[in-house]
Amino acid sequence: MRDNEDIIYGRNSVLEAIRSGSTVDKILIIQGKHDGPTDTIIREAKKNNIIFEFTDKKVLDSLSDESKHQGVVAYVSPYEYSDVDTILNIAESKNEDPFIIIADEIEDPHNLGAIIRTANMCGAHGVIIPKRRAARLTSVVSKTSAGAINYTPVAKVTNISKTISELKDKGMWFVCADMEGDTMYNLDLTGPIGLVIGNEGSGVSKNVKKNCDFIASIPTFGDIDSLNASVSCGVLCYEIVRQRINKG
Amino acid sequence: MRDNEDIIYGRNSVLEAIRSGSTVDKILIIQGKHDGPTDTIIREAKKNNIIFEFTDKKVLDSLSDESKHQGVVAYVSPYEYSDVDTILNIAESKNEDPFIIIADEIEDPHNLGAIIRTANMCGAHGVIIPKRRAARLTSVVSKTSAGAINYTPVAKVTNISKTISELKDKGMWFVCADMEGDTMYNLDLTGPIGLVIGNEGSGVSKNVKKNCDFIASIPTFGDIDSLNASVSCGVLCYEIVRQRINKG
Repeated sequence: MRDNEDIIYGRNSVLEAIRSGSTVDKILIIQGKHDGPTDTIIREAKKNNIIFEFTDKKVLDSLSDESKHQGVVAYVSPYEYSDVDTILNIAESKNEDPFIIIADEIEDPHNLGAIIRTANMCGAHGVIIPKRRAARLTSVVSKTSAGAINYTPVAKVTNISKTISELKDKGMWFVCADMEGDTMYNLDLTGPIGLVIGNEGSGVSKNVKKNCDFIASIPTFGDIDSLNASVSCGVLCYEIVRQRINKG
Repeated sequence: MRDNEDIIYGRNSVLEAIRSGSTVDKILIIQGKHDGPTDTIIREAKKNNIIFEFTDKKVLDSLSDESKHQGVVAYVSPYEYSDVDTILNIAESKNEDPFIIIADEIEDPHNLGAIIRTANMCGAHGVIIPKRRAARLTSVVSKTSAGAINYTPVAKVTNISKTISELKDKGMWFVCADMEGDTMYNLDLTGPIGLVIGNEGSGVSKNVKKNCDFIASIPTFGDIDSLNASVSCGVLCYEIVRQRINKG
């Protein structure tokens, strides 16, 4: 279930939102033959690089009130996304080594909110999320972030792996969390660093993991599989903080 | 909103649940004059040390289906609570210093679940929660614990402060999380330890804080007030783990 306030529907509303430059995260369009206005929406979505999907009438009915959607429903974000350069500039302006958290396909908005909250508190300069298969900046995320969303920039990128490569070219190191990595206490996590936290179920995706310099594991002594994603993020962030303090 | 499966209603059902020894967390009884069967429930609740409250008919209506509650609704736990001695015995049987997490008035079941999950993974021997003003072991907690609830014992006590005193008499040390404490890296957190995590909004309660040996703070560099309660718990648990590993 998603918050209603992040959803708009009806051809005119959706088209207006795209053209006004609002942050449209995704458009759902009814399956089958489309009329002129709907084709215009598809064309504008493509032009503006907005994700769209064709779906069942029932899905659209369940997402919008009173079935007034006219075959088009859009998720819009009440929060502005930032970009990677802005995050790097913040680090530079503070004269600090960049410290970025990459939330790779985090699906649960409570986890994303808690990660943004942790990013803010531990002194990370920003959070990067992927455009697809991930929680967006909804009001649930905002609430769980306890206001951190207003301070810590969140950038949305098309391809996490590509972004990591570009940031590596700029001198950053990347570490991802995985049970099969080296114990975090034994890694040097100081310097300009990006911490990658993977999906709640499947962990960090293969391509992204391949692209990381280190794989860090949190030592565990339990009966179950893993820590909660936002707790893992917190534990690793604070290992980075500890090492930075010790070195500084 | 609470999960329906944790609620029973109607005089006979509630009375049976009390008498059968099921874990009844709390009973809500309609305000006003009571008939015989309801008085019996009140008497049995007192005898079995079960919390009960008088409330409006509307509240009971909203909690139970089709208004068949006959003035009585009870929250029952689908999970068995453990006790403090069992937790201590587990530590002893593993030949380890006791490591216990006390969730002092954690209200959000997602936080309680994540704390139990963290307890399991970081090698803590159990979790203690208070009887009042706190999330109980509901199905939401179970789900968020990712199964940890089946391995890590959770004890429910009447008075957290008193339990801490009793455990101090047995040689345990207590540390609570608070922004105004000493930086966690500068404290010796090895040995038999209890970690107290406070309420999401108001933190660790005064009486409990007074009773702790150390107050530990997590260093922060952000714009907002605090970390998420379960993230704080994870960060502190892993500082304890790090110090235990270093010492061992």
